Amino acid sequence: MDLKVYNYLTREMEIFEPQVPGRVGMYVCGPTVYDHSHLGHVKTYVAMDVVVRYLKHLGYNVRHVRNITDVGHLLASGEDRIMKGARRYQLEPMEVVETYMASFFADMDALKVLRPHISPRASGHVPEIIQWVQGLIERGYAYEVAGNVYFAVEKFEEYGKLSRRKLEDLEAGARVQVREEKHHPADFALWKRADADHLMRWPSPWGEGYPGWHIECSVMSTKYLGQPVDIHGGGLENIFPHNECEIAQAEAYRDVTFANYWLLVGSLTVDGVKMSKSLGNFLTIKDALQLYTPEALRYFVLSSHYRGPVDFSQEALDAAQRGVERMHNTVRKLRHRIKNAPPAGTALLSDVSGLRDYRNAFEVAMSDDFNTPQALGTLFEFVKEVNRFLSENAYASVGTMVTMERIFTDLAGDVLGILPMSFVEPVESEELVAGLMNLVLTLRQEYRESQDWTQSDYVRSCLTELGITVNDDAGGSTWQLGR
Amino acid sequence: MDLKVYNYLTREMEIFEPQVPGRVGMYVCGPTVYDHSHLGHVKTYVAMDVVVRYLKHLGYNVRHVRNITDVGHLLASGEDRIMKGARRYQLEPMEVVETYMASFFADMDALKVLRPHISPRASGHVPEIIQWVQGLIERGYAYEVAGNVYFAVEKFEEYGKLSRRKLEDLEAGARVQVREEKHHPADFALWKRADADHLMRWPSPWGEGYPGWHIECSVMSTKYLGQPVDIHGGGLENIFPHNECEIAQAEAYRDVTFANYWLLVGSLTVDGVKMSKSLGNFLTIKDALQLYTPEALRYFVLSSHYRGPVDFSQEALDAAQRGVERMHNTVRKLRHRIKNAPPAGTALLSDVSGLRDYRNAFEVAMSDDFNTPQALGTLFEFVKEVNRFLSENAYASVGTMVTMERIFTDLAGDVLGILPMSFVEPVESEELVAGLMNLVLTLRQEYRESQDWTQSDYVRSCLTELGITVNDDAGGSTWQLGR
Repeated sequence: MDLKVYNYLTREMEIFEPQVPGRVGMYVCGPTVYDHSHLGHVKTYVAMDVVVRYLKHLGYNVRHVRNITDVGHLLASGEDRIMKGARRYQLEPMEVVETYMASFFADMDALKVLRPHISPRASGHVPEIIQWVQGLIERGYAYEVAGNVYFAVEKFEEYGKLSRRKLEDLEAGARVQVREEKHHPADFALWKRADADHLMRWPSPWGEGYPGWHIECSVMSTKYLGQPVDIHGGGLENIFPHNECEIAQAEAYRDVTFANYWLLVGSLTVDGVKMSKSLGNFLTIKDALQLYTPEALRYFVLSSHYRGPVDFSQEALDAAQRGVERMHNTVRKLRHRIKNAPPAGTALLSDVSGLRDYRNAFEVAMSDDFNTPQALGTLFEFVKEVNRFLSENAYASVGTMVTMERIFTDLAGDVLGILPMSFVEPVESEELVAGLMNLVLTLRQEYRESQDWTQSDYVRSCLTELGITVNDDAGGSTWQLGR
Repeated sequence: MDLKVYNYLTREMEIFEPQVPGRVGMYVCGPTVYDHSHLGHVKTYVAMDVVVRYLKHLGYNVRHVRNITDVGHLLASGEDRIMKGARRYQLEPMEVVETYMASFFADMDALKVLRPHISPRASGHVPEIIQWVQGLIERGYAYEVAGNVYFAVEKFEEYGKLSRRKLEDLEAGARVQVREEKHHPADFALWKRADADHLMRWPSPWGEGYPGWHIECSVMSTKYLGQPVDIHGGGLENIFPHNECEIAQAEAYRDVTFANYWLLVGSLTVDGVKMSKSLGNFLTIKDALQLYTPEALRYFVLSSHYRGPVDFSQEALDAAQRGVERMHNTVRKLRHRIKNAPPAGTALLSDVSGLRDYRNAFEVAMSDDFNTPQALGTLFEFVKEVNRFLSENAYASVGTMVTMERIFTDLAGDVLGILPMSFVEPVESEELVAGLMNLVLTLRQEYRESQDWTQSDYVRSCLTELGITVNDDAGGSTWQLGR
């Protein structure tokens, strides 16, 4: 079965063919670590995580690189985001980076997003960036003005090819002073001069400064994955200018395609508006995890196609939570049945080939540009079938039940990450205590009815010693733990 | 109460005085991340962690920087440790770094070692390192030979002042080729030429290469904590050449002391020999955590003074595990007593000033160069006192009991990190089930003795339904969960 992906570069569905058979290099634009991450990040990184997981499921050896932006990503005001964090919290910029990078990784771990193989940091690649900027100047694609180096978009003929924007339509968003320095309003900074109060600064051929935002991704993708890289991923909101600039920098520096397949993820929206820190309409991952399980958050994201948006609402998240719990209950019961199966059960549900159909339908959906809503639909059809089997108290061989369980483990667990490896079962011992108390109170009731007060009181005193209080009234006896 | 520390620079106990009252800058030499960490690292980083925690306890605002060495730390063979890891696992060097850096942080988190405020990486500070090396050449302290830059130890008069070694006694451990390049056999590399097959390489004024091991710490300590830094910490085994070279580099670059107080940690030994990766006599932290709780590992390390060695043995670790469990049991009982205290108990143990003595004795010990064995002794005296109070079933006001509990939380918990915030109590429901089963089997035995087989069988069938199997034999009935 071919894997088809929607390539934003061509705006077409294409059969995925990595450069080296069996191996995939994948670069994903990572976060700027100046505050705690929010649900918008969950949408992007869970979607990309499922791409990585499905490629692995297909047998590919994936090298996944996701950067950490810790310098150079400016706000509209021209202020570096990290510096803003540093000012707000009265910290050294790298202390801000350390804090929120750790927070981001903890969030991703909690959400079961697999760790990338390399998480390079922009500030850790300044020499490579300087070398690259120098190369662009030498090749005539960049120019320096007063310690700032800009990329000359007019020199790169294909500028706009990913975002399908035309150069003549592009307005500059820059402040007046910056606009005056530029040859064309759409020219973007590769290197910025550091003002006197700018803490993050490095020596360069153009004086002390720091890298622009876009250059880091061209440099780090190429350093760790070569040029072209098979897949470049990230949030669709970065298609312009960030991704467009990445292409321009890389393909102007070397006459080689930057990335073969562009997989971009739609936004998480709130009432149709993108969730973002700057808009203030966000829920942090940590807060969300107080309300919902990681599996529910993943399920919520995966219930829409990755390219499209998904709209946040409490109802949608509640539904996601109920959805995964329904699946988990089925898997829990199935595992319990397997554990307690007689050594050689009769296979009534012997249609194992029917089970294969579910696996196949899941893969058909996923191989169609990672169509997770359809894949989830298949899995819930399967949940229904397994529920029917469980409620009819049918007998199946352990082998058949294990085959069923593996479908959940492989597809819901390994590929989609919405199934825990094992369930915590605090309920079980509670149930056991309740069952035993039921028995004990039944026996005691019989003593009471035959007026055997000695035995009845003996039982009560034993229970009291165990910390259980018994209340007798007209309707019978009830019990509770503690006084 | 003054805090006295043993300063390795002066080899004397000194009263600790930070440069800015109330603030402490502290740099600790971190790990080279090319494999999983072992118990030897626990000794160093738990000891340093307790220094940080105690400084905080005293009210200091601590900025703690601990580096990650991800390039330039060579083996005796001249091979970079990271490259060795990369070759062994067939990975990109930075994939090795990513893997084992994450492993190290996970281990430290598990051991409750507080995260440093900044964990700078050597590979992320190459421009600063190059600038520093250039400065040393300009000031006449360093020279270049064929792409390698060496520090000229003869030019730095105080070379040897920390480790108390004399230059004339120093033999070079370097390979012959390297020895021939050097002006003096003890000269050490600031920058190394990268051979053709060396993957980690950066452009420099001396050609493509990579930094030497020692230079990163001088550069990163100074960058984030200034010069001088208040405290420089790490393992005593690094006093020469690493720490000595750090001083030489920093004080030759600027005529300012590098670090005011040198706090160095003795080794973890196995039968008197240092535990190390290269000797193969190590137990990884992950393996150790399968056998012992984090609190037991910390207790084991803290039961010896940080400057001295501690010898590893299963007996010592078992004893540590028993030790912390004894304390935990006491705290558990105390917390239970507080929870269930009558609203206004009578204060029999009214000597709250006696409680203050324990706190004071703890601080006297810790302020004497972090004398954790003595501090632990005080805490276990306190455990005995609280146990006596608990076993005598004495009454104390809730306030007194809370004061007792706070001593544990503040000193054993916050300062030493050997007390969990809360205890997981899976035992309780197990005990309850056992108690109930005891009662049920007693009642059933009575039915059996009075030959009431209906009741006896009824009990058995109820238990079977709950998943409990009863076995009757001559000695009585036993039960188990499951078949």
